[in-house]
Amino acid sequence: MANLLILGAGVMGSAMTVPAADNGHRVTLVGTHLDEEIIKALKVDSAAHPKLKAPLPAQITAIGIEELDPEALRAAEVVLLGVSSPGVGWAIETLRKRMLEPRPIALLTKGLQPWDGGLRSFAAEIAAALAGQGLSERMVAGIGGPCIAKELADRQPTAVVYAGADPALLETLKGLLQTPYYRVSLSDDLEGVEVCAALKNLLAIAVSAMWTRHPEHNPQPHKPRALNPASAAFSQAVREMAGLTGWFGGRPETAYGLAGLGDLHVTAGGGRNSRLGFLLGEGMALDAALTGPLSGETLEGADTALALAGPLENAFAAGRLAPGDYPMTRALIAAIRDGRPLALDFESIAFV
Amino acid sequence: MANLLILGAGVMGSAMTVPAADNGHRVTLVGTHLDEEIIKALKVDSAAHPKLKAPLPAQITAIGIEELDPEALRAAEVVLLGVSSPGVGWAIETLRKRMLEPRPIALLTKGLQPWDGGLRSFAAEIAAALAGQGLSERMVAGIGGPCIAKELADRQPTAVVYAGADPALLETLKGLLQTPYYRVSLSDDLEGVEVCAALKNLLAIAVSAMWTRHPEHNPQPHKPRALNPASAAFSQAVREMAGLTGWFGGRPETAYGLAGLGDLHVTAGGGRNSRLGFLLGEGMALDAALTGPLSGETLEGADTALALAGPLENAFAAGRLAPGDYPMTRALIAAIRDGRPLALDFESIAFV
Repeated sequence: MANLLILGAGVMGSAMTVPAADNGHRVTLVGTHLDEEIIKALKVDSAAHPKLKAPLPAQITAIGIEELDPEALRAAEVVLLGVSSPGVGWAIETLRKRMLEPRPIALLTKGLQPWDGGLRSFAAEIAAALAGQGLSERMVAGIGGPCIAKELADRQPTAVVYAGADPALLETLKGLLQTPYYRVSLSDDLEGVEVCAALKNLLAIAVSAMWTRHPEHNPQPHKPRALNPASAAFSQAVREMAGLTGWFGGRPETAYGLAGLGDLHVTAGGGRNSRLGFLLGEGMALDAALTGPLSGETLEGADTALALAGPLENAFAAGRLAPGDYPMTRALIAAIRDGRPLALDFESIAFV
Repeated sequence: MANLLILGAGVMGSAMTVPAADNGHRVTLVGTHLDEEIIKALKVDSAAHPKLKAPLPAQITAIGIEELDPEALRAAEVVLLGVSSPGVGWAIETLRKRMLEPRPIALLTKGLQPWDGGLRSFAAEIAAALAGQGLSERMVAGIGGPCIAKELADRQPTAVVYAGADPALLETLKGLLQTPYYRVSLSDDLEGVEVCAALKNLLAIAVSAMWTRHPEHNPQPHKPRALNPASAAFSQAVREMAGLTGWFGGRPETAYGLAGLGDLHVTAGGGRNSRLGFLLGEGMALDAALTGPLSGETLEGADTALALAGPLENAFAAGRLAPGDYPMTRALIAAIRDGRPLALDFESIAFV
């Protein structure tokens, strides 16, 4: 039995309490300042998470960030970081103040951060930002693969990837968290897993858009759907993901596994990014989607597009990447950054 | 404008008349002895294909096999072979008798044939069987990628792969058949494309089974579905497909493109093999499915399992493949050949 601390009580951080508690660990779920209502509800009834719609184990301890004792952080075998991607800066500041000794950090949060004229993953960002606290990149693990939070909390089977530079840490994490329904495989391609996890949110938008765009003049919005266009788009999405993963210094093969195509598959099957894709596929512009049906939603795929746009254009200009290899990524950026209709014409794509 | 001859008037052969006619070719659609009702209907009204549920172009010529003049075959720029997989022997006999000069053959039909204690693709089978007619393997092209026939006939966009040993033939075929909605990419990995096309029918059964197996004790058959299990299974399916493709002498990378994961994606999304997966996922045995809800259906994935079983066991016994790398394929064979319940326990799979 170990002490596990989960920072961020959103759906993913909260769902991770289920395999953790099933393995008999002492689990402390720490809400951010945005999670006050969640923590309040969980303190009354651990089964009453207002966003997750699945019961959490009775034995977990839910606290607000103001209740987090640095000694409790020191006693944690591992810190799971489950804030949303815009919350990473806040998480870094929190750990800087309260982490008395460096603790291994496993990242549920996904995204890309501007860095040195380019981008880096949150794993690299966090390791660099907490170097003063003694944290090294070897103490950071990324988590990828298909894992809808509610399904994990419902103990539906899935398989994920833990990635990092320290095999011993990965084995420890796997030993702590793997259950019969939550299967953990290991990878040394931390950057690849992190980049795939961010890119899949973006590319899933295009795959989902192909479901609603075709047949054209669809009399019933969202159905009936043609399947060929989305499957061809799925194949192209995986190809672009592999190329971009290599550009980031990850291994292209990672895009062909659980963290790449596996997570893309589940992400294009539902969720917020997928809903944005449905709307863009029907010809809605981004602004109309964000002020209308998706008002107030966090769209991590859109954030990824904005972060990616400049560095990608630089890579094209410098000849490090060929624009013709990334028609889907470019169409998504044009739709999301520039507010143009999503132009994903199959005639413009050199499929392989 | 060219003369194109399509042998087999089932849904896929018939759907190919649409891009062919849109490109202005003279198209002759030849029904087999099993297609008599179809040809009869098409002779009255080309829009009235009884199985395709989508109109065929008015200018095509539909004839029965008994009407096929060997001179018409000689005049064809290319023969598209669209019979079902059990009809390949019949197609070979027909061509042996009526093909006065060797014509290039593009294969819509998919499957694996026993050969020399192992297996080979239909492409290799046909080239060998028609060598006496002057056909070489360079004159055979395989067609892979996501392509539901009805959607093609409805001109929904998709992207496919034409594979073969002769780049000039592939360019010719692409020039004849590519349209704005039917995008053709080229590959020299004929064996890989053919093997992926056969394997995807089998592996899609397992992906689909994960949709109905989880949540367990599903109160409403087929819904609500958990998505994580099918996405993890999809990733595993692609991995096994890549390994088996290499074993067949194809390139494992082919499994990561349109002919592999692209076609698997669309096949697991619907169709007969997918429906068998839903039933096996719910715990039905193969026999009960075949005598019940799927009575009378051609299940090419099941045929693939039967063809694959013996050669795969030999490869395991000889140490050419590791059984632990193929838990999904083995579970499918056990369910289909041996009539056992589909045992696809995530704890037994070493996901990567």
